[in-house]
Order: sequence, then C-alpha cells, then structure tokens
Amino acid sequence: MAKEITSRKDDYSQWYNDIILKAGLADYSAVRGCMVIKPYGYAIWEKMQQQLDKMFKDTGHVNAYFPLFIPKSFLSREAAHVEGFAKECAVVTHYRLKNDEGGKGIIVDPDAKLEEELIVRPTSETIIWSTYKTWIQSYRDLPLLINQWANVVRWEMRTRLFLRTTEFLWQEGHTAHATKQEAEDETIQMLNVYADFAEQFMALPVIKGVKTPNERFAGAIETYCIEALMQDGKALQAGTSHFLGQNFAKAFDVKFSDKENKLDYVWATSWGVSTRLVGALVMAHSDDEGLVLPPALAPIQVVIIPIYKNEEQKKAISDTVAIIVSSLKAFGISVKYDDADHSRPGWKFSEYEMKGVPVRVAIGARDLDNNTVEIARRDTKEKNTVPLEGITGYIKNLLADIQEAIYKKAEKFRNENILEVNTLEEFLQALDTTGGFISAHWDGTPDTEEKIKELTKATIRCIPLNNQQEEGICILTGKPSSQRVLFARAY
Amino acid sequence: MAKEITSRKDDYSQWYNDIILKAGLADYSAVRGCMVIKPYGYAIWEKMQQQLDKMFKDTGHVNAYFPLFIPKSFLSREAAHVEGFAKECAVVTHYRLKNDEGGKGIIVDPDAKLEEELIVRPTSETIIWSTYKTWIQSYRDLPLLINQWANVVRWEMRTRLFLRTTEFLWQEGHTAHATKQEAEDETIQMLNVYADFAEQFMALPVIKGVKTPNERFAGAIETYCIEALMQDGKALQAGTSHFLGQNFAKAFDVKFSDKENKLDYVWATSWGVSTRLVGALVMAHSDDEGLVLPPALAPIQVVIIPIYKNEEQKKAISDTVAIIVSSLKAFGISVKYDDADHSRPGWKFSEYEMKGVPVRVAIGARDLDNNTVEIARRDTKEKNTVPLEGITGYIKNLLADIQEAIYKKAEKFRNENILEVNTLEEFLQALDTTGGFISAHWDGTPDTEEKIKELTKATIRCIPLNNQQEEGICILTGKPSSQRVLFARAY
Repeated sequence: MAKEITSRKDDYSQWYNDIILKAGLADYSAVRGCMVIKPYGYAIWEKMQQQLDKMFKDTGHVNAYFPLFIPKSFLSREAAHVEGFAKECAVVTHYRLKNDEGGKGIIVDPDAKLEEELIVRPTSETIIWSTYKTWIQSYRDLPLLINQWANVVRWEMRTRLFLRTTEFLWQEGHTAHATKQEAEDETIQMLNVYADFAEQFMALPVIKGVKTPNERFAGAIETYCIEALMQDGKALQAGTSHFLGQNFAKAFDVKFSDKENKLDYVWATSWGVSTRLVGALVMAHSDDEGLVLPPALAPIQVVIIPIYKNEEQKKAISDTVAIIVSSLKAFGISVKYDDADHSRPGWKFSEYEMKGVPVRVAIGARDLDNNTVEIARRDTKEKNTVPLEGITGYIKNLLADIQEAIYKKAEKFRNENILEVNTLEEFLQALDTTGGFISAHWDGTPDTEEKIKELTKATIRCIPLNNQQEEGICILTGKPSSQRVLFARAY
Repeated sequence: MAKEITSRKDDYSQWYNDIILKAGLADYSAVRGCMVIKPYGYAIWEKMQQQLDKMFKDTGHVNAYFPLFIPKSFLSREAAHVEGFAKECAVVTHYRLKNDEGGKGIIVDPDAKLEEELIVRPTSETIIWSTYKTWIQSYRDLPLLINQWANVVRWEMRTRLFLRTTEFLWQEGHTAHATKQEAEDETIQMLNVYADFAEQFMALPVIKGVKTPNERFAGAIETYCIEALMQDGKALQAGTSHFLGQNFAKAFDVKFSDKENKLDYVWATSWGVSTRLVGALVMAHSDDEGLVLPPALAPIQVVIIPIYKNEEQKKAISDTVAIIVSSLKAFGISVKYDDADHSRPGWKFSEYEMKGVPVRVAIGARDLDNNTVEIARRDTKEKNTVPLEGITGYIKNLLADIQEAIYKKAEKFRNENILEVNTLEEFLQALDTTGGFISAHWDGTPDTEEKIKELTKATIRCIPLNNQQEEGICILTGKPSSQRVLFARAY
C-alpha cells in the first residue's frame, strides 16, 4: 500500500481527513480555520464550477464581481441579516503597517485606522443591493440575473477541511425581479439546477425541501435546500436557494416603477453552493481504499499503467498506449499515462485508488501478445481482461456505467436510511444506531424544534417539497401535526 | 446618440471613465477604491481568464487556492517584501461584531481581538512559501508549477477603475525549482506567455524587458515585464514575471535534497496579470464613439439588428436571421440578435458602437428582397452591402481582419512613438508633446533614475530584452552609458 488510511468503521471522521490529506485534495494552512486547496482538489472544484457556470448561463444568468469588503453599517441595515452574521465576521480596522519605533518590528499603524470598519464579506446581499439601488429604476431594468464566483469568510469556531472553513469559495446568485411570483419561480428554478447538478454530476441523490424558520438564511422569507446523506448517517446541506421577498430592497431602498408608473420595492432571491460540495463528494462515495469519484467530476477519468521488465517492453507498451490515449482524448475522456520509472505498478495502483480515478487500465507484455488490456473499475474494484479492439467505446460505456452505479448505490443507501418513527424513544434509538433521515411528526413550533435539537443534536433538515399531508402527533409534545418532517444530525 | 462621451482630445482621463461607465464595464462602489465589475466587463475578464488559463495549463501549470489572509509575521520574513507592501495593507484585527450596550448599534467586539493580526493578501508569496515548506523535501517534489486565480488588496491612495483599485482580481503563478537555470527559464517562459497573450488576443503590441532595481517587485532578484503604450502616450505595465532566486525559500526555510542527497534552498518564480488588463484594452484601442474590442476577447462578436416597419417585415427578417445565427454559432462565433421593440435601430447602432461589438449586421425589408445585408465593422466604421450567400465565411474572415487591423494600428502607433533623445532638453520636450516611450542613455544608477523621476515624472519602464549595446552619455549626469533604456510616464 502506498498510504494507509483509517477505516470508516474505526473512525469516520479520521477516515475523511485521511482521504482529504492523502489524496492531495487539501491541506491545513498557517491561518486558523483556513485551508489550502491543493491542485487535485482544486481540479475537482474547477470541474464543478465549469458545469454549474454552464447551467447558470443556460438559465439566463451572467457573472459579475462585487467588492470583498462591506461597510459595517451596510450589514446592519437588515435586522435579521446582521443578527445572523455579526458573530462570525472578520473585521478590517486599519490600512497600513509600519516599523515600530520601539524596535518591536512591524506593527499596525495606529494612524491608519479606518473611519468605518470594513467586514470581509460573509455573503454579499448588502453590498450587492446597495449597488442594485443605482442600477434599477424601471421595470425595464428587471430582471437582473447575476451570479458571482467569490471567496467569503465566516469566522467559524470549529472548522473542518472543505465542510466548514473560515474562508471558502462559492458562487452566490443575486437576482432582482418585478414580481413576487417571478422571484419565487427563480428560487425554485435554482433549487432544481442544484438538485440536477448534485444528482447528474456528483452522483449524489438529494432531497429538495424548505427550511423551517429556525434554519432559514438570515434575511430570507423562505430558504429552500437540497439535503444529502453521508455514509455515517449524517445529513449534509449541499445547496440553498433563498426567496428574500422585499427585505433587502427595503433595507437599501430599491424601488422600481412598473408599467403603470407605480413605484414598488424590488423582489429578490439569492442562492449558493460552495467548496463544501467537494467534502460532500468525498463523504458520499469514498471507501476504505480512498476516494471514489464519479467520472463526470474526475480530473483524471482513466489512468493507464504499463507493466514492464525492460526498456524494450516499455517501448512496445508505450507505442500501443499512445494510440489508446489519442483515441480516448478524441472522445473527450481525460486520461493519464503514468510511465514513471521511479515507482512500481503496485504502488501506482494504490495511489490511483487513493485518488479515486474511475478506470484503471494495466497493460503488460503478455497483454500485448494477446491484444488485450486489464481494466479495473474503482467503484466496485471489478477487473476484466478486455480486447484492445474497441477499447475506447468500452471505456466510454464503462465510465457511464460507473457514474450510474455510484448514483444508484448512494440512492439505495439513502432510501434505506429514511426512517419513519412515531415516538421520541424510536427517534433517539434511530439516531444512535443507524442515523439517517428520520421522518417524524413535529408540532410546527420553533420552540419544540429547538428543544429537540438540544436533546438530540438533530435538526429539521427540511420539509420535503410536495410533502405528503398526514395527521399525527408531535414526537416531543404530543400536539397535533399535519405532516412529517425530516430530522437528522448534520454536518 | 444613445450616450455622449467626452472626446479623447478634450480630456483623455474623462474619456476613459466615460467608456468604462457607459459601456457597462464597471461601476464605482460604496467601498473606497473598490469597484464593481459589471457583467459586460466581467465577460471580457472571463474571456481573458479562459485563454490565459489554457496557456498556463499548456505549459504544465495547475491551479490551486491559498488563504486570503496572511499572518502579519509572515509578511515580515522577507525584508524587501514587507518594505514594499507594509504601507498599503488591509489589516484584520477582530473576528466578531456585537450590539453596543450603550445603544450605539453594531460595534466591533473588543473581546474578539486577534492575537496576531491578519493581512488581506496583497500578493501571496509568503503564505505560499510557508506552505511549500511542508510540500517540498526532495528533488522529486520539484518543480511545483502552481497558479492561483484570486482577489488581492492593496490600499492605494489614488485609484482608477480597472487600472488601480484597492481590490483587484488577478492570477499569480508561484513556481518552485531545483536549479537557478530552471527558475530563470520559467520566468522568461511566462513573460513570453504574457506577451503572446497581449499581442494575439488583446491585439496589444508589447515590449518585453527587465526592470531596473528601483522598479523591481519587492523580494525579487529580477523583474521582467511587458510594457504597452496607450493612446495618450503614457505607458502601461501589462504583466510581470519575477525571478525570486532563493529569497523566499530562505525566508521560509524551504530546502530540498538533490540527487546526491545534498540540501539546498529551492529556487522560485512568481508572475501575474490582473483586471488592469481590461483597462489597458480600453485605453489602447477605443475611440470617441466608445469601446473598440478585438474580436478574440469580445463577449459579443457580431450583433444583428433588424430594421422593420411592421410585424410582418420583422417576422420575415427574423426567419432569415435565425439561419445566419445558427450558422455563425456553428463556426463558434458569438452572436446576438437584438430584436427588442422598445428601441429604434439608430439607438441600437450607437449602443453597440459604445460596447465595441466588432461586427454589426443590419437587415431590412429591402435587404431581404435583394438577398443582402449591411455589414459595418466597428474599428474603421466601414460599411458594406454583402450578399447573404456566403455570409458566415465573410464574417469569419472579417473578424480575423479586424483582429489584425486593430493590432497593426496599435503597433504603428507604438512604433511611431518610440523616440530616441540625447539630451535632457529633448527628453523633456518629447514628454510634454508626444509622450511615448523615450529611448535615452542613463548612467545605470538608482540615484539618477530617481532624480529623473522627480524632475519629469517619467520612470524607466524597462531595459528591453536583447537590448542593443551602444556607447553614450547619461541625459542627466553626462556619465558614460552602455545602452539606451525606455523611459515613459506611466499608468
């Protein structure tokens, strides 16, 4: 084995960290809570970005860029918003360093104090809506369908590589509309874009739902989300789409004149996904040998490893491989031929297993004689000897099979881990054994939700869209309930 | 006219701002010195990014992401580096806001003061080399060829949209090598990548050269640059590539063992271009009617405008346009059909002139009868009636012609504005009349360079690569000089 990783059953959390570090996805940094995204991890994020960006543009959005800094007073304009973010803000107070005259080295220059402190954006509603005020006068200026790819900072006390870091990368869409209906439609449209992306590209089945008031985005009227299940039975919020009503338009006085020349506040949405998706991808599919990547997001889809005893064999193998490589590339398949001499095939096998490369092709002298190669798939570890003829089509189909198989496996696991319970005792037992999504009745009050959270560390992940209505009684209070909601412990 | 802009001869600086604002490239923001990059301006930056990213990857580089924040002590490790950046740093000192008990609203929580202040990165050498220390042990770990797309902050006192903003977007390459030669070769390779990009995509002729010690990047052994000339005769540094020697390796103690197991410090380069290139693009090519964009970077390469008197005519025109649009798209040409009813063709003409769309196609009822369209090119404003048959090929060739014509025009201007002068009097006269690059003898001392700068506001832009050696005397001191260098006033 190239590198040892902890098994999931021994320590799921350590297993996750081992994979992130040993597959070369990310690294800790010298700055508290911030990570370094290493080239291999960043390549996965780039593939996510490309696909999402295409989906945003296909639905009529354009990209723009707004300032990193938010004047402190802006954050305070929307009451719920500042309440939600004030406790985790990085604050810029000065704009210069200087040499200490007392010989203490470089210090912050007290003469360079800002009149108004600047907040490093934790999200950009306030700076964007202060700008929209100058861009929007008439219904003809609407809708504004703008997205931004950016870094944001939330001063988290407990951080975790990819899943929760002080700085993270994300996209944030901020749209402005003339009508409530149009803004609501946009909110749902983007929720669907996220769900399609998760399912078709990340091979990650998700439940679409709406958050309870307790779990809403600070400043939103409704927060919609996609929720996924990780292998340890904990849920992970993979994306959110907010209907903001006229809250930010009111906070920044953004009005437009409609066709009848009547003034009204503009309607808003915002929606985002972040580098946390890379963490979700790892947690959802990987195994005790390392990363398992769905082909649609794998930076390297196929690795080819030669097995040779001398230069003559290597040369013959390399000649054949060159043909395979160019025909795979012609199909748009990303392929790496690893003919480095300094490591042995066995080491390479486990290295690429660790890195989650979906398809491994091994080719030795005997294979050449037989006009075959050995093909191993990462997800099931199944190996087959396959004729060289038609190899490109075979691999193309195999990649599609793997993509589907990874999804099906995750879907089966998720479906098996949605448990209906009817009492608090069942609820607690489910949480402490299998975990998973727990479908239970709740009396609909924030207070009960909070108490259940304190008692069990489980939160309401969402009320699924088009949720079945069903009479029941709340597991905590026994009060009447009209529908089940999904609880889980969550990342 | 849709919008009036100041002419270049009346006020070049105002002309520039007018174009940026009225073509919708960027906007001022509520945060001092920070701009909002609007969708049309961001679309140009995205095209630049895509092309540069491809060129970086084609030369073996990969992307990664390092933290936004740099511990204050890191910045101090390299003496010249901190000297260069300390005076313009945004400093994070606190990590929380709170409600003031005295009723003053939201204030910075004094209990949430950081032990060590964090600097918002002005450039990332220090945080990256502190990370490379953990990644590099042996020659087998080298070279590291990493690039990062990121935002950076330099607290500039005088800012200007795109050209000099407190926050800007850029890429910064940071490479690590086992030998001095390899690092030097990388520095020159990336300089050439930048020059190729500027010339082939931005249609911007550049002079490749090396900076004098006064103008070197803080912490570099040599700074190479590409210098371009703007229409007002001022120079603009469009990209830099630094050979850092072992300075940062020594500051962060990054050593590697070579093949003979001998320890040595690692060799480094860094190189970057930024959103300032968008400003350069505007200043280099645009005219008094607005933006002129080279087709290779134009978000919309072709706009088609229907001219109709009634719905029936519009319908017939639109049917024909649909065919043109799909065949242009098949050629990879980005095209917009603007059939909006709320503005008249004349308004649209000047709007797309303002936005610098390289090719405008107008099509009316009479054109339909004649199977022709009217084609206008933005750069020369030449108009032609062209048969519909073969229109796609015609436009494709026209776009290539425009790209070349814009380059040739800029090159001619630049070449006519490199002036050889031999006395200080000639030097001053040239600066105050035509401007341009002034090729003059200099005695080679930082002191003389500084005095010329104080006297004339002109700086040495570069010593061109492969500069001709020629005996002469310094224009200021009369001391001997072995070569001419290029002076200019610069952005």
